[in-house]
Amino acid sequence: MKFFDELALGDSYETSRTVTETDVVMYGGVSGDFNPAHFDEEAAKKGMFKTRIAHGMLSSGYISAVLGMHLPGPGTIYLSQTLKFLKPVFINDTITTRVEVLSIDKEKKRATLKTECINQAGKTVITGEAVVIPPLKG
Amino acid sequence: MKFFDELALGDSYETSRTVTETDVVMYGGVSGDFNPAHFDEEAAKKGMFKTRIAHGMLSSGYISAVLGMHLPGPGTIYLSQTLKFLKPVFINDTITTRVEVLSIDKEKKRATLKTECINQAGKTVITGEAVVIPPLKG
Amino acid sequence: MKFFDELALGDSYETSRTVTETDVVMYGGVSGDFNPAHFDEEAAKKGMFKTRIAHGMLSSGYISAVLGMHLPGPGTIYLSQTLKFLKPVFINDTITTRVEVLSIDKEKKRATLKTECINQAGKTVITGEAVVIPPLKG
Amino acid sequence: MKFFDELALGDSYETSRTVTETDVVMYGGVSGDFNPAHFDEEAAKKGMFKTRIAHGMLSSGYISAVLGMHLPGPGTIYLSQTLKFLKPVFINDTITTRVEVLSIDKEKKRATLKTECINQAGKTVITGEAVVIPPLKG
Repeated sequence: MKFFDELALGDSYETSRTVTETDVVMYGGVSGDFNPAHFDEEAAKKGMFKTRIAHGMLSSGYISAVLGMHLPGPGTIYLSQTLKFLKPVFINDTITTRVEVLSIDKEKKRATLKTECINQAGKTVITGEAVVIPPLKG
Repeated sequence: MKFFDELALGDSYETSRTVTETDVVMYGGVSGDFNPAHFDEEAAKKGMFKTRIAHGMLSSGYISAVLGMHLPGPGTIYLSQTLKFLKPVFINDTITTRVEVLSIDKEKKRATLKTECINQAGKTVITGEAVVIPPLKG
Repeated sequence: MKFFDELALGDSYETSRTVTETDVVMYGGVSGDFNPAHFDEEAAKKGMFKTRIAHGMLSSGYISAVLGMHLPGPGTIYLSQTLKFLKPVFINDTITTRVEVLSIDKEKKRATLKTECINQAGKTVITGEAVVIPPLKG
Repeated sequence: MKFFDELALGDSYETSRTVTETDVVMYGGVSGDFNPAHFDEEAAKKGMFKTRIAHGMLSSGYISAVLGMHLPGPGTIYLSQTLKFLKPVFINDTITTRVEVLSIDKEKKRATLKTECINQAGKTVITGEAVVIPPLKG
């Protein structure tokens, strides 16, 4: 983790995870999101993507995990997030979540980070920006 | 659900759910977000909110559930979402998630919706906007 | 949802869901039903169906979900249910759950619904009837 | 477990389990049943039971567990089940599930069992009957 004073432009962190069918089923339970695009293979076959896809908000949660655990890390206050869903995430895709410090506001003690989810083929599936208050020393 | 042609400014939908400790634990598992703010009561006691809080991205998932299941509903393509985290969600809070059609782009077949999560005290905890392609008839 | 006064003979609702291995495992946890027919592939290979099957009571729960959420919907009191298990549900089957109003008792404020689970091949796997007290206005 | 030839009138088996909030949340996920009676404490407060209740079909699953694991046990074919929901099950209730052989059809190789769920106060919350084909020897 990094305290506000230690944070520099370009600092980055990334982590990866394979999105399993189990993740999708369990995320359905906690979100209440049983959209047939995620839960009904017969309906999904006839849809745009030809098979079930994972929830975009499931992968978006990986961003929050990186911000809160690694960069800046524990103590970070999450102010806002923008998300563009560029491509679908399929079950068994492996998603690399990457955050990078874009700007630092010394006065307001805030940082803006570029946040991206990228699949195993190197395609960006989600992009956006987060604004956070990094943890302060002492 | 509503097809693009049926969607009107001001159309809204809301649903509510109590955020249990189980939800927070299970969401930790699917997101990998084990930030001590959500998982370490001893650390949380000494922090800003004095107890563990739920993940902001967990409540954000309720928004996607409403968009994909109810308004506009199945077949919706989720393009983007902005999120401002205004207040913490505590374990056992009951969150009402409300979406409302703000604007419709007839040419691009897109709709923008106001998206809000509101706690049992009537305080908005998350606010933002979603842009979607509602399902098209036929 | 429909209030008692709005309910008519023949009203129906249906929804579909693919039964994943994850569902079977998680349902095992909440029901305590670790019958080898659901959990032991080696035993199941030698049994009647040649592979693990899903719990009949898991699919039966989809009926309750439709009654309580959609038809009649929130506020419904569930009085009774009959269930005939006609065919097995296999992992990865997609089950359509359908309920239809069969009779309405104006005096007792009760409704009887036909309740069915149907697989992706169009075969009825579970059939039965539910008796409910639909929500009353005001 | 008992084979068909070993089964006698009056044979019984019972087992107990405390219904936790976690069970209710996880069962919501696998059933898709997010009825506010089970998930929205604010709505439930204003309802008939003044607090969230567990799904009736969750406790019903305990019956199937006893039939399939203990009496008659592995190899049993579940033909049908009737269920009367007599009283609500609250979170943290401890439910004893009891099955007892009521009749045996020697010709059809079937058995009918009384099936009951009883709460910690000794009140029967669910009652009904199951018809099964017990496992045959050899």
